[in-house]
Amino acid sequence: MATAAETTAMRRALALAARGLGFTSPNPVVGCVVLDAAGETVGEGYHQRAGGPHAEVHALRAAGDKARGGTAVVTLEPCNHTGRTGPCARALLDAGIARVVFAVGDPTPDATGGAATLRAAGVDVESGLLAEEAETGNAAWLTSVRSGRPHVTWKYAATLDGRVAAADGTSRWISSAESRADVHRLRAECDAVVVGSGTQRADDPHLAVRGPLLAEGAVPQPLRVVVDTRGTAVRPGARVLDDAAPTLVAIAEDAPDLPGVETVRLPYAASEGPEIPYGDASAGAEPAARRGLDVAALLAALHARGVRSVLLEGGPTLAGAFVAAGAVDRVVGYLAPALLGAGPTALTGGGITTLTEALRLDVRECVALGPDLRVTATVAAHAGPAGATHGTAPGTAHGTKEH
Amino acid sequence: MATAAETTAMRRALALAARGLGFTSPNPVVGCVVLDAAGETVGEGYHQRAGGPHAEVHALRAAGDKARGGTAVVTLEPCNHTGRTGPCARALLDAGIARVVFAVGDPTPDATGGAATLRAAGVDVESGLLAEEAETGNAAWLTSVRSGRPHVTWKYAATLDGRVAAADGTSRWISSAESRADVHRLRAECDAVVVGSGTQRADDPHLAVRGPLLAEGAVPQPLRVVVDTRGTAVRPGARVLDDAAPTLVAIAEDAPDLPGVETVRLPYAASEGPEIPYGDASAGAEPAARRGLDVAALLAALHARGVRSVLLEGGPTLAGAFVAAGAVDRVVGYLAPALLGAGPTALTGGGITTLTEALRLDVRECVALGPDLRVTATVAAHAGPAGATHGTAPGTAHGTKEH
Repeated sequence: MATAAETTAMRRALALAARGLGFTSPNPVVGCVVLDAAGETVGEGYHQRAGGPHAEVHALRAAGDKARGGTAVVTLEPCNHTGRTGPCARALLDAGIARVVFAVGDPTPDATGGAATLRAAGVDVESGLLAEEAETGNAAWLTSVRSGRPHVTWKYAATLDGRVAAADGTSRWISSAESRADVHRLRAECDAVVVGSGTQRADDPHLAVRGPLLAEGAVPQPLRVVVDTRGTAVRPGARVLDDAAPTLVAIAEDAPDLPGVETVRLPYAASEGPEIPYGDASAGAEPAARRGLDVAALLAALHARGVRSVLLEGGPTLAGAFVAAGAVDRVVGYLAPALLGAGPTALTGGGITTLTEALRLDVRECVALGPDLRVTATVAAHAGPAGATHGTAPGTAHGTKEH
Repeated sequence: MATAAETTAMRRALALAARGLGFTSPNPVVGCVVLDAAGETVGEGYHQRAGGPHAEVHALRAAGDKARGGTAVVTLEPCNHTGRTGPCARALLDAGIARVVFAVGDPTPDATGGAATLRAAGVDVESGLLAEEAETGNAAWLTSVRSGRPHVTWKYAATLDGRVAAADGTSRWISSAESRADVHRLRAECDAVVVGSGTQRADDPHLAVRGPLLAEGAVPQPLRVVVDTRGTAVRPGARVLDDAAPTLVAIAEDAPDLPGVETVRLPYAASEGPEIPYGDASAGAEPAARRGLDVAALLAALHARGVRSVLLEGGPTLAGAFVAAGAVDRVVGYLAPALLGAGPTALTGGGITTLTEALRLDVRECVALGPDLRVTATVAAHAGPAGATHGTAPGTAHGTKEH
């Protein structure tokens, strides 16, 4: 049983871990608090960036000799492998830690086993304290380890009746200034921001983190990704091509070269499977029948570059392709208290034809942002209706049928 | 300045008033608490039903002689007219009340002036205590007095992406059992429930209050209203024709008679103005181009029958006609944590073509109902784009342009 002091320390460790969001990929975020034998906090630390010391090392350094006989409270099972920084299990033993409490086990094949190593050396080890909170905090990294692709958050801003623009295409601004500022926080927490060619054409978006966050110190900039199948949407002078953040343009294998732009060539989606449409229907650009790129291939390419979390900011059709591919893990909806009654809807396509196939979510949070509501929901189980990149048996419905 | 005891008493009076919701039309809901000279509660009452004693009379009866020299805390300005029950201002004077604190003034031409009468008789009168809460509690009645038509609440149940059914038309159940039970509470609080012919054909709805509410004692049943322009949707044996509640079918002036059914004949909407479509597009029944009934005429007919609050439960097209008519005051959305990506949207039409015309709302409440969210929002200012039944200058946009 964890003590009250250990529970308090774990909450603190979770808060410390969250400071690393956006900086640590392909590593997890981790926080650590070291308590002395009397239960007093004598050291804190978190994993600040990939390649830098692990959380335990920071906390042990801060604690110094006071760690001897004490307890290390860690959000993730201490690693057992010798990577760039040496195994944390070894460091904890060297510091004379008598007890380790961690929240979530490390599922990585070459890092797992830290708990066993510690136990074998006589350390009292306990796991599972505040595990749910820790899972949520490390959702991106855990998803990527377990499913082999980045964690995907689909973000949209819509009216209460689900419109992302008016009938004439006007969409600035459906959501409030507070909501728009909040999107920059989301971007800073993710490794990559993805839009499609329709959004690229319609909005010429910038996609980097801007605003007050930048004044608060070091802010991680996401990789900006434009899915531009034919290579015709990202024009010279596009705002995503400035030096505020790196940019990658995904194009088809047979698309023309884009000089001076970093590109990745991807296969088209299988004709029956989910695909990234050429143009977003919302922008009225291209018929949806045109072939798009394979969502799974895009995510695999991003994963190979170290991307563990993706913020999907594209239009309704790109979001539909991700839903059809079973590649949405979390939804963040900014709901503006307004009605339009016409105009494009937040999500188009997705391969769902009847109610029992609906992609069911669990609401995790609903907060007010100025006049708007921000709803955060997660997908409990993945099972796309067709061509899912991962999941259970093919042909099963999304999520649960009833609740 | 109101005392702390008076503020507490007003909160209690507001809670008492709310018990009358659904029973008092065409009267307001009113609650009253009588405090003795020492500030102790000595009587409580509320207006229980139209034709019954007013709240003040109930509370004064309960207080008896202890009211002398005391304070009456009332949610609405005491009436000055001699209706079915005699003026409350007179009753307060006769009971020897020394001070009256009320929340909201009475805007009715023949009832206003109670405060002046009381002041002229030497009573200390204060107004405005918890006025905003009291306005909200009496929104239906105040709207009807000020604008001459019933207060309209549009209720819908949709997925997070704004769909009210899947692509194949399946919609049972998008929202949770908790949300569906809550709709019965909404019905009980309103004087009439309105659907269109599309919903009538597709769902054969019952529209009466059912469920656990009925076990809690007397529950008011709303008037069930079906807008059935051609008189072809309400068939013999329709569930709305049972004896659970009264039913009114609105038909066009040139529609055939409906034997055995209470009907009201209404004019068609003006061709340029808002109209109630013949069939809901959501049900795929009829082309939207078919003429519908005039929304303002429908609301006037209901108002003439004593209806002060309407719950609009129709499909997306009927809701759009009400929005176009500037005849939506409150929106209650049951948002299910699910995505569909296809299927009919919550609201269709409404005459809004560009974002600056969006019908802007203020979120009043967002609560969890089982897995769902219930969002309650109100329309601050009415100004329909065309043919508004009331509002500011024609052609002005809904609400504010930016926020």
